[in-house]
Amino acid sequence: MKKLINAPDAVVADSLRGMEAAHPDLIRVQYGPNIVIRKDAPVSGKVGIISGGGSGHEPMHGGFVGMGMLDAACPGEVFTSPTPDQMQEATKAVDGGAGVLHIVKNYTGDVMNFDMAAELAKSEDIEVESVLTNDDVAVEDSLYTAGRRGVGVTVLVEKIAGGAAEDRKSLREVAELATRVNANGRSMGMALTPCITPASGSPSFELGDDEVEIGIGIHGEPGRFREKIGPASQIAERLMTPIVEDLPFNSGDKVLVFMNGMGGTPLIELYVMYDEVAKIAQEHGLSIERNLIGNFITSLEMQGCSITLLKLDDEMTHYWDAPVHTPALRKGA
Amino acid sequence: MKKLINAPDAVVADSLRGMEAAHPDLIRVQYGPNIVIRKDAPVSGKVGIISGGGSGHEPMHGGFVGMGMLDAACPGEVFTSPTPDQMQEATKAVDGGAGVLHIVKNYTGDVMNFDMAAELAKSEDIEVESVLTNDDVAVEDSLYTAGRRGVGVTVLVEKIAGGAAEDRKSLREVAELATRVNANGRSMGMALTPCITPASGSPSFELGDDEVEIGIGIHGEPGRFREKIGPASQIAERLMTPIVEDLPFNSGDKVLVFMNGMGGTPLIELYVMYDEVAKIAQEHGLSIERNLIGNFITSLEMQGCSITLLKLDDEMTHYWDAPVHTPALRKGA
Repeated sequence: MKKLINAPDAVVADSLRGMEAAHPDLIRVQYGPNIVIRKDAPVSGKVGIISGGGSGHEPMHGGFVGMGMLDAACPGEVFTSPTPDQMQEATKAVDGGAGVLHIVKNYTGDVMNFDMAAELAKSEDIEVESVLTNDDVAVEDSLYTAGRRGVGVTVLVEKIAGGAAEDRKSLREVAELATRVNANGRSMGMALTPCITPASGSPSFELGDDEVEIGIGIHGEPGRFREKIGPASQIAERLMTPIVEDLPFNSGDKVLVFMNGMGGTPLIELYVMYDEVAKIAQEHGLSIERNLIGNFITSLEMQGCSITLLKLDDEMTHYWDAPVHTPALRKGA
Repeated sequence: MKKLINAPDAVVADSLRGMEAAHPDLIRVQYGPNIVIRKDAPVSGKVGIISGGGSGHEPMHGGFVGMGMLDAACPGEVFTSPTPDQMQEATKAVDGGAGVLHIVKNYTGDVMNFDMAAELAKSEDIEVESVLTNDDVAVEDSLYTAGRRGVGVTVLVEKIAGGAAEDRKSLREVAELATRVNANGRSMGMALTPCITPASGSPSFELGDDEVEIGIGIHGEPGRFREKIGPASQIAERLMTPIVEDLPFNSGDKVLVFMNGMGGTPLIELYVMYDEVAKIAQEHGLSIERNLIGNFITSLEMQGCSITLLKLDDEMTHYWDAPVHTPALRKGA
């Protein structure tokens, strides 16, 4: 295992210190338990939004803390759920009197701990709503999941809900919008290579020299099948067909395409993939109104990609376009 | 070789089509020869700025085309210089009557071809100034270079010169500022793994399972030495010491730190490295006024990083902070 780290058990804290040193204008970091908090939180009268999950998926979630997106993020150890007390402290830190939204990816540990945190917060008279993301069409139940895994749509939910909260929508309105974004989003991913968690020091799975895994999870969970690697056009089709058929997406639909890299995939390849995805979308009569391309929800240094398709309505588009200023996403600020 | 591509000889054009499909609000792409052009170029009365070089370093340069940065980029084949006619066409396409600046990384082919393009443009009465970047302190002459290689500072030159051009500074003023940024910037990189060019299908060099190469070039050119991988703190020191001693950077200097990933390095590791770099900068009494962290000048899927330190003056800081709206860098727009 070769990594730019000091020690396996120091990665998360060291990386958070780097974030804190780099972005004091946007965030502050609290250690033990670890929380990345928007610099000016709590924002009075604004719905607070928090998310969290295992580390190793950067920039998600800490990189999305700031104006127009998250108020706090709870990073667990690598690929390990954060703890209920961590989430509870984050909830208290961002409560500006208008309630707090928890955005929870559907993994058993995350769901259980966010549920406990919500109960704890409610016992302290903080109003909490939770929205689950479960957009991965690859498999139904998975290694760490009952039901579908929460993946790429989480980034879109955080941006759109963040815009609505910044606009002083109520907790009920923000939660309804976030729920709708998740319901209208579908994703699927694939891997060229596994990743190595610092603690284990060994690959999360093995793949042949000419093999890819279609439907991979962001922790290396098994996908639908393996096959010999084909051209980008074939890989795009393998991911797009299950996505388009699932919702289903229909001719005339306006969509956002999120072409995500798994962490070790260079941008030149993501644009090759985006070109293929755009062609397939066109064949289905889908109108791509917005897009996001880059490494946003990753799996350490895994090579591969995922596609998220979101069926847009006017409110989603409006808040997607709203200003945002975070370490990893910025516009209009 | 496993890559998200259709065919080795189609990578560059396919990727450009993806960029064109993704960012029609910012850029247009011309094919054969390939040029990425700012949507509204030429901008009347503004100095046009172009750069270019081999592909495989994305988002550099095409991802930096747009308001506040480049007017056009000339992507060559992977790790191959663009052609003089490509550069000449780009020069003509962005000439708004105030002259054109060529930003040229110091590699023999790039320098020779940009020289020819400048001559051709002058023969058509377009005023051209050229600024060479040569900030890599690792080695003097290299595989494709007489003198020092041009690396990370190129991104900073493009942003700062772009801001000055947007502010309607004259060609002479923009060229002087760009020259000063290069003169005040120093870089050094390292690799954990080689990369594989699509055309060759084999690694650009071999490294042992526990080895790193210190001083690597962005095309896998040899560095200063190899050693057994150490902690991030040691790697940061290996890169920072030669950088700081070279200019030299002195206690009290205001600097910009650019912590760059080589393409396959996840963000969590770049922040671990940034934390170490910030500590070393502090030991030297340097005041980090600005930073940039991410994969901006890459070497395909290579794992590793580079550090660029820029000694800032007020004008550089002013134009670093100026609005920019490109596919890969955005603020205030």
